[in-house]
Amino acid sequence: MSLSKRVPILVLRLLALGAAVSATIVMATSHDSADVFNMKFEAKYTNSPTFKYFVLMNAIASGYTLVLLFLPSKNSCAHFILVLDLIMALLLDSSISACLAIGQVGKNGNSHAGWLPICGQVPKFCDHVRGALVAGFAAAVAYFLILLCSLHNLMNLFTFTT
Amino acid sequence: MSLSKRVPILVLRLLALGAAVSATIVMATSHDSADVFNMKFEAKYTNSPTFKYFVLMNAIASGYTLVLLFLPSKNSCAHFILVLDLIMALLLDSSISACLAIGQVGKNGNSHAGWLPICGQVPKFCDHVRGALVAGFAAAVAYFLILLCSLHNLMNLFTFTT
Repeated sequence: MSLSKRVPILVLRLLALGAAVSATIVMATSHDSADVFNMKFEAKYTNSPTFKYFVLMNAIASGYTLVLLFLPSKNSCAHFILVLDLIMALLLDSSISACLAIGQVGKNGNSHAGWLPICGQVPKFCDHVRGALVAGFAAAVAYFLILLCSLHNLMNLFTFTT
Repeated sequence: MSLSKRVPILVLRLLALGAAVSATIVMATSHDSADVFNMKFEAKYTNSPTFKYFVLMNAIASGYTLVLLFLPSKNSCAHFILVLDLIMALLLDSSISACLAIGQVGKNGNSHAGWLPICGQVPKFCDHVRGALVAGFAAAVAYFLILLCSLHNLMNLFTFTT
């Protein structure tokens, strides 16, 4: 593959790596506590299976991206890597969507279900979650663009076949 | 494109259509009510933005799949449809993940955040959500397989390039 085809993907992978590592660290270090009715209430990412899933997926994406950056680029693996990239994009997409749904309940609550918002009590925790979501979203967008670039490189995506 | 290449994708699109339509209908008709402390508590999908997003995405997927089934298959659009299929797979994936995260809180609650489970009070509603999630998951898997088949048809995915 020519250099002009490889450079955009390399830049996108570096962006994805930075974003996924940031998302993992920011979410894993999210912590805040508050006293509600004399009861100590501690908020951390391990309190929710969704946030744990988010950390796991972003850690996997970080590791996967790092490995690919150091792998010698061989055309023979291009199809296999394309499928792995697709799976990674779906996993990142899934982790952000799940986290966003829980974050929305944390911020606004759900009066119908009787779930109260918690961001008023633990604002630092919510700020971390928000930051992690932005970084995770950047990683997912980078992977979507990597997919488009790879498809374009492998089969000239933006020209019509006859 | 030869018939042997088109048939698996056609079957998968029919499966995706059935699953997405079922997911939309089952979620949209989810309804249950209960009396909690003499207060009437009504559960329906419009109570949560996540469930509304799920219905919207599955309705869009149904419409899109239906249109594609009736479109004459032209090779010239194959690349464009591949990108649309990718976006559809990501949207379905996102809607299921978000819905699963909220469903998990509905079923088990979250003691740290003080969110109580609601499935004990409105079991019929939870059964509907569970059914919609299974159907939505089937639609997303069908779209993942459609993507793999399309990639294979367009560039022989499972043979290594040299």
